[in-house]
Amino acid sequence: MTAVEHMKWWGWGVEGVGFHHEDKPAFAPFVLNAVGLDLSTATRAEQPVFDELNLAPSAARAEFTAALAGIVGEDHVSTDDMDRVVHTYGKSLRDLVRIRSNLIARAVDVVVYPADEAEVQKVVDAAVAEDAVLIPFGGGSNIAGSLEPHADETRTVVSLDMGRMNRVLDIDVESGLARIGAGALGPHLEEQLAAEGWTIGHFPDSFTHSTIGGWAATRSSGMQSDKYGDIAQIVRGLRVVRPSHDDRDGVLVIPAIPSASTGPSVREMIVGSEGRLGVITEVTAQVHRVAEVREIQAYFFPNWSAGLAAMQAISESDASPIITRVSDSRETGFSMATSKERHGIDALLAERVLPTLMRRKGWNLEDICLSFIGFEGGADHVKRQKKLVGAIVKAHGGMGVGTGPGVLYDQKKFDTPYLRDFLLDMGAAGDVSETAAPWSKLAGLYDGVVTAANRAYDEIGAKGWIMCHLSHSYHSGACLYFTFAFVFGDDPIGEYDVVKSAIQQAFVDNGGTISHHHGVGLEHSPWIEQDISAEGVAVMRGLFQAVDPGANFNPGKVVPVDRVRVDG
Amino acid sequence: MTAVEHMKWWGWGVEGVGFHHEDKPAFAPFVLNAVGLDLSTATRAEQPVFDELNLAPSAARAEFTAALAGIVGEDHVSTDDMDRVVHTYGKSLRDLVRIRSNLIARAVDVVVYPADEAEVQKVVDAAVAEDAVLIPFGGGSNIAGSLEPHADETRTVVSLDMGRMNRVLDIDVESGLARIGAGALGPHLEEQLAAEGWTIGHFPDSFTHSTIGGWAATRSSGMQSDKYGDIAQIVRGLRVVRPSHDDRDGVLVIPAIPSASTGPSVREMIVGSEGRLGVITEVTAQVHRVAEVREIQAYFFPNWSAGLAAMQAISESDASPIITRVSDSRETGFSMATSKERHGIDALLAERVLPTLMRRKGWNLEDICLSFIGFEGGADHVKRQKKLVGAIVKAHGGMGVGTGPGVLYDQKKFDTPYLRDFLLDMGAAGDVSETAAPWSKLAGLYDGVVTAANRAYDEIGAKGWIMCHLSHSYHSGACLYFTFAFVFGDDPIGEYDVVKSAIQQAFVDNGGTISHHHGVGLEHSPWIEQDISAEGVAVMRGLFQAVDPGANFNPGKVVPVDRVRVDG
Repeated sequence: MTAVEHMKWWGWGVEGVGFHHEDKPAFAPFVLNAVGLDLSTATRAEQPVFDELNLAPSAARAEFTAALAGIVGEDHVSTDDMDRVVHTYGKSLRDLVRIRSNLIARAVDVVVYPADEAEVQKVVDAAVAEDAVLIPFGGGSNIAGSLEPHADETRTVVSLDMGRMNRVLDIDVESGLARIGAGALGPHLEEQLAAEGWTIGHFPDSFTHSTIGGWAATRSSGMQSDKYGDIAQIVRGLRVVRPSHDDRDGVLVIPAIPSASTGPSVREMIVGSEGRLGVITEVTAQVHRVAEVREIQAYFFPNWSAGLAAMQAISESDASPIITRVSDSRETGFSMATSKERHGIDALLAERVLPTLMRRKGWNLEDICLSFIGFEGGADHVKRQKKLVGAIVKAHGGMGVGTGPGVLYDQKKFDTPYLRDFLLDMGAAGDVSETAAPWSKLAGLYDGVVTAANRAYDEIGAKGWIMCHLSHSYHSGACLYFTFAFVFGDDPIGEYDVVKSAIQQAFVDNGGTISHHHGVGLEHSPWIEQDISAEGVAVMRGLFQAVDPGANFNPGKVVPVDRVRVDG
Repeated sequence: MTAVEHMKWWGWGVEGVGFHHEDKPAFAPFVLNAVGLDLSTATRAEQPVFDELNLAPSAARAEFTAALAGIVGEDHVSTDDMDRVVHTYGKSLRDLVRIRSNLIARAVDVVVYPADEAEVQKVVDAAVAEDAVLIPFGGGSNIAGSLEPHADETRTVVSLDMGRMNRVLDIDVESGLARIGAGALGPHLEEQLAAEGWTIGHFPDSFTHSTIGGWAATRSSGMQSDKYGDIAQIVRGLRVVRPSHDDRDGVLVIPAIPSASTGPSVREMIVGSEGRLGVITEVTAQVHRVAEVREIQAYFFPNWSAGLAAMQAISESDASPIITRVSDSRETGFSMATSKERHGIDALLAERVLPTLMRRKGWNLEDICLSFIGFEGGADHVKRQKKLVGAIVKAHGGMGVGTGPGVLYDQKKFDTPYLRDFLLDMGAAGDVSETAAPWSKLAGLYDGVVTAANRAYDEIGAKGWIMCHLSHSYHSGACLYFTFAFVFGDDPIGEYDVVKSAIQQAFVDNGGTISHHHGVGLEHSPWIEQDISAEGVAVMRGLFQAVDPGANFNPGKVVPVDRVRVDG
């Protein structure tokens, strides 16, 4: 069988790794307070049993599967149930609940693992000839419903797993440009780059289990995008396979040009297209020399508005940090509660000295906000950046606490998804929703979202929790990243929908976008019209229908389009 | 009549302003050497006479013109010949030659000046109902053939002049976002912003005679885009009028979000669309506080490759200048030749001390390259930036010569187009072509373009000139901006085509794009398929056909599309 590794079929990450709180004494009390869940008495759910899943047999015709095997080899086509299940969902809360609840409305029929672009072209052509549906698959980390087939899809559904096309093919060292196979996972591509002294600088929460093709297809952002840019900036060149023609293949090639005025940007159409315009096989990405110095400094602010104002001031200043992040007071409390038990001088400083200092400043410890700001570059540059930022922090009433917490943040940054699985085991639903808005709207947006979430919790009769951090800064605004959780009752998905919908609606009602970096998929598509206007959706729909008249390419994602032909 | 001012119908800029060289003693010898034109004996062409133009009468039906007058008012619709001629061409060399040669194959039929978006909507609907062609018009400075009607267009052609929609409507001072009417000319919008302490930071060569709507529609870049970004980054929000529907208007609204993952970017489809997707009526642009300090420092490098290498090193460094520019030796010679006569200490320094210093360094004065690097920010920041850049310049064998030349550059930066008209008067054709490419390809691209141009000059039997500067730096590459000139013979446009085509083909043959910031229009569309691949063009064409099935919106620009319906 094919050597592509996947996450657990029923949850995040790899088998044998999970969240535990035995070494985090403040965690259980925190959870009890936040959502009313007593971890000491709650029963942990059993791991679901694969053999108990109700899975319809693959609808793929034997001739079609054989044709695919003729293209990629017998070992790289699978109608195996595990393969089909792994490729049917991403890892949204909705996905996790469904897989744990034995709810698979429509599994993919066949999984194909092409070795190269020529094979992708043949698979695409075979799928279109079969009038099948093609859904490209990277790491399977999507949380916007971009991967699942439509529940009522009657055609054969092919999941095109890009996992074998995972190599850094070439680095143009003069230009800082690397050609990378679309199926390269974050750690794998970063290792290959690091071996030559380079980094891509793209570190989304999903980094360990997501691919560069997936990042491009969903408009991902990383933790250091303040410096390195969102994936739309990092992706300079693209190769995308579309159906071939009588006289030529269907490979769309966008060369890696730093900037061009060649009409509407086809590059920016492919980025974010979630498989609807074709299969991304290769990305030429901007890469950077690994910086001489890298530091993440932690700061505290007396309250959220001071933290927001400081981030805004930094964005207007001469400083150029790589990360600007500030948590609201609830998330600050959460961070403290997930810290390991401190001992000796650490405990003394964190639990005695620091709080005393803050009280003396007149701070209310319930309101304090933890901030991380990252710096990279030459030693002089980093020193100067810290000085510029330090002055702004001080002017906004904040204080620096050094690099200690930042080191922890750096180590733990990819672990949060495991926590969600743990909570789900214990009976609580947790998920995330992010937005971006102009600076002038952030405070009102934040309040509106918290109010909407709390109203939704009332509606479903749950004690709920919502917390937030500002995760990326831009000249004209920032991303707010919300995490929410509640103990679910009889109808986890129905209850989740109430909360999630309230938050999404609060985004658009308060001047934010429906998604800053998680994509649209099925999860956010009900709000796309409120986001980019009915006419914006009409233009996007026109594009999809024109270039995919048979609706073979991941139909119905981003904008809800049924199977229509352009002349229909 | 409507109060919108336009450039000269037969050339660049305003009446009464032109290039002269009486105070530039080195200019005439330079021109003689460069293209073999003796300015002391050449006869200056007469200004063309408007009344001698052969202009077909307007094809607009009286009822249609009356309907338009019913929308915008009698004073704001014109079928006047001068209005029609002014709106038929941009200001490319091809345009100037044609207008001077009485070659107007197809003039626009009627010019409309709407006052607001509601009027634009009604004009758009009336035009589509009439099956007319709509061509939006900003400042008329386009040099890519984006404004002219197709020579064989049989339908009524409407030029939609946005000049009355020219106000800065609102500044969100917290977010640094300004809503600006699409018809606002550079100086007019910058004045309105400056009154409140802001700048848009966008200064293309055409600045004085181009509009923000035009910048957006053609993917413009400005001189300071290293800091402020190209227009695609500056444009955050957009309002675009498209045909209305039974149940709603046709206004496409992209809100000013700093970054979003909402599918293929409709914002990036509108940017660069050259009128093909609708009429841009309003832009929400990133604006910045006017910097405390602004300095343009001049440097000399011993040769072109040292200059290029230094710009590349700056782009990789911790420095972040606002402008990086280096001229090749020929353009450096040109700059010296267009300087005014120097006196006293200036003359001594420039003509004696500096050359002596350079010779002592072992430089060949024929090879030296002039560079401008700009800095903005707080005084400390600028000081540090200069230090960082100074060290890089030195490491590449260059030397700084202070701010004197930069002040001159700043003053003269918008004057170059007048020179082209002067040369045309004297019998020489001059024009510009720009590209962008990865750093690794720039040296080869430069050589390839110069070789191709010289081969083209041989082909047409002219003594020709080509010079270049690097005008914008990015992480992974840069823009090279070429200026070329030759004395034309009997067939100026035919000869120009040979040279221009050779240059464009050399761009794509050597890994560059066909246009970095001038757009595509008709001029560059023959190369669009070589630039973004046949499949890229198929996607773009699909978009145009889907959203403009009647081909009413500036048809045939960017990609050559005939009047086809999507079901055709």
